[in-house]
Amino acid sequence: MSVNIEPRLLKGFRDTLPGDERSREQIIQTLSSTFKTYGFVPIDTPVLEYAEILLGKGGGETDKQVYRFDDQGGRDVAMRFDLTVPFARFMAGHRNELYLPFKRYHIAKAWRGENTQRGRYREFMQCDFDIVGTAGLSADLEIILLMRAAFTALGVADVEIHVAHRGLFNRLLTHVGVGDHSEAVLRAVDKLRKIGEAEVRSLVAAEIGAEAADAVMAFIVAGDSNEATLQTMEEAVGGPSPEGARIRAVLEGAAAAGFSTGLVLDPSITRGLDYYTGIVFETFLRRLPEIGSVCSGGRYDDLASLFTKEQLPGVGASIGIDRLMAGLEELGVSSAAGGAADVMILCLTESLTGHYHAIAAQLRAEGWAVDVFPEGKKLGQQFAFAEKKGIPVALICGESEHAGGTVNLRNLGTRETFDGLTIAEADAQLRAILQK
Amino acid sequence: MSVNIEPRLLKGFRDTLPGDERSREQIIQTLSSTFKTYGFVPIDTPVLEYAEILLGKGGGETDKQVYRFDDQGGRDVAMRFDLTVPFARFMAGHRNELYLPFKRYHIAKAWRGENTQRGRYREFMQCDFDIVGTAGLSADLEIILLMRAAFTALGVADVEIHVAHRGLFNRLLTHVGVGDHSEAVLRAVDKLRKIGEAEVRSLVAAEIGAEAADAVMAFIVAGDSNEATLQTMEEAVGGPSPEGARIRAVLEGAAAAGFSTGLVLDPSITRGLDYYTGIVFETFLRRLPEIGSVCSGGRYDDLASLFTKEQLPGVGASIGIDRLMAGLEELGVSSAAGGAADVMILCLTESLTGHYHAIAAQLRAEGWAVDVFPEGKKLGQQFAFAEKKGIPVALICGESEHAGGTVNLRNLGTRETFDGLTIAEADAQLRAILQK
Repeated sequence: MSVNIEPRLLKGFRDTLPGDERSREQIIQTLSSTFKTYGFVPIDTPVLEYAEILLGKGGGETDKQVYRFDDQGGRDVAMRFDLTVPFARFMAGHRNELYLPFKRYHIAKAWRGENTQRGRYREFMQCDFDIVGTAGLSADLEIILLMRAAFTALGVADVEIHVAHRGLFNRLLTHVGVGDHSEAVLRAVDKLRKIGEAEVRSLVAAEIGAEAADAVMAFIVAGDSNEATLQTMEEAVGGPSPEGARIRAVLEGAAAAGFSTGLVLDPSITRGLDYYTGIVFETFLRRLPEIGSVCSGGRYDDLASLFTKEQLPGVGASIGIDRLMAGLEELGVSSAAGGAADVMILCLTESLTGHYHAIAAQLRAEGWAVDVFPEGKKLGQQFAFAEKKGIPVALICGESEHAGGTVNLRNLGTRETFDGLTIAEADAQLRAILQK
Repeated sequence: MSVNIEPRLLKGFRDTLPGDERSREQIIQTLSSTFKTYGFVPIDTPVLEYAEILLGKGGGETDKQVYRFDDQGGRDVAMRFDLTVPFARFMAGHRNELYLPFKRYHIAKAWRGENTQRGRYREFMQCDFDIVGTAGLSADLEIILLMRAAFTALGVADVEIHVAHRGLFNRLLTHVGVGDHSEAVLRAVDKLRKIGEAEVRSLVAAEIGAEAADAVMAFIVAGDSNEATLQTMEEAVGGPSPEGARIRAVLEGAAAAGFSTGLVLDPSITRGLDYYTGIVFETFLRRLPEIGSVCSGGRYDDLASLFTKEQLPGVGASIGIDRLMAGLEELGVSSAAGGAADVMILCLTESLTGHYHAIAAQLRAEGWAVDVFPEGKKLGQQFAFAEKKGIPVALICGESEHAGGTVNLRNLGTRETFDGLTIAEADAQLRAILQK
């Protein structure tokens, strides 16, 4: 067959090579275990759905970024562009099979034909977790505690979770008489972290005038402590309010549950979407704040109003796995350290192939990851191969060792060798070398 | 907002509810750990690729089943319909970053617009594992041993792996002078398990005549032992051959590595694809043979000839995760037993919400999965909720327990209660109740 097709990838798509895929697998497993200790359960939904389901009747603004086409049966279908809309459809469709409150997580890919010049990929992995069917404080608290637990399990305990309350922000805008400018003001405030106070102030003032802008700025700039910030916020909206009380209860509840350092009341957090109605939050890696929030979300009144009349209030958060992976790598938090195996069995003679696999089976039974070099190549090549795969120890067994029922080990780091070992002795020696 | 969209799914697609998704997660994790102990590494590739990559220039016969469309940039793209073609493209594209032999696994979804009346789904999950870059016996052996190890880890040690050699079958057809009928003969032989010997014989005889059909039948029907079968096969092709010697070496090597019972030489295994050139295999659940092979594959000469001039021989196998899950469920091999949590903390008063989450944190630190009921509903409702989620123990803490620094536990199976426990005592009592 002639070679005629260039093995190229679509723009904005990429392969995941073993090093990265091992990290990703490890991250997913860590998140999944953490969610399970909080009583969350996993679900999955199809990658393809009716376009009407994902985009609403007639399609929406996100249209141009969505992979949408007619399938073989002439159906108007699309690939999911997030995990939220499929979850809403899922809840509406399976309501009678599920108990409320329902706590689920979903770790899966989604697709958007975004402009790749912004360093974004068109295929990305999301991790969403939500508690649906309760409007109470406890769920707000649990999501925040779970976010901290997840990052602690991932090896970055020093995250800062910034919380605010969308309802309190709306109350402020009404209080200063600019409720009809909320979208423009929110958009400006959302840039605080990027462009700074002065710039935000002039954007807001241009929209609602200097006096109202001063009130907004007084509200959104955090004070010296969460309590000071909260007092300023409450004054700015004209006194105590249910939303202020909810924030206070979240902060106090988190403190009672052992989480206070790292939980920051930050009234500039708005989360763009109309969707959120209660607390909102973003998560920053303290040693890498410049990559932005690695886990964001909030409370909503009604998850699935497009699909069912039953009101489903809830609270949830989302982690962008790709950005998180890049962040962890930059911080040197390696989630999949080590080589592709603990020990590689060299091939001294191909006639012993069955025996090599027998030794491998015995060592695997002791918990070791074992590679077997498959061909009788020069030993130099075999050692080089072990090094490339990051395998720290070689096991050597030729005709005479086989006859004597022994093997030799070689520490490829120190070049130290250990000869004439039984398998039990080899196991013990591996524990000594690899400190396991 | 008015309710106007029915939460329906596309034909041939389905949601995965928590029970099944927990099983699938567990299966994937078990397979992944097993692969790692054999020195295999994971990779991933994009769901969308150029149609030319997946289908070859101009598209092929599978065309009608493939989800193919023009993307926003006018590119002719398709969703992958297996993991083999993307792997070939991957090897050709990353050849210089990888070491050979390269051992990879890939567990991911693929899509085919198949006729759903045959009980097939249009979205399905595959698990492929291959050793590429070696033509040696050792890799054949390792794939077979790994298959057995994977099923043992999944709780079905009593699988039968049936092996044959495509090259030996081709040798037979040439020997009886019907080499040009190989496709029709292979197609008939592939039905042996379904339609029986007599039917296969008449199909084959209709194609190549009675005498040649007798030779084929003598070849494909297994004998009383692997050795007897092999002798019959070798006689049928006119004596010893390199292919016969390779099969013998595989059987002997597997025995040396501790695998003989359950490894069956079965010359009727042909695997339809032109792709295979050496040993081929299928795997049957001994207690559920009727669902057909749950893990199939074989050796090929040249993985990526469409994309590169470098010849890449290899051997690999593929597990259809959906069929396997259905099989394990039917066998009662539950891979994700137990409830959504070990213990649920009841909500006696919402003012203790923070305290409940503090207790939860302490118990999670001891390794327990803990659910916190989020609202002060009637206790009967809370107990019913725990039962629905399969949670075996309730933790009760009201104002007086909180004041005294204690909690009460209730075994929801036996209704036994344990009052006035410290957290350390509760931990010990949980171990006793749950026998962990």
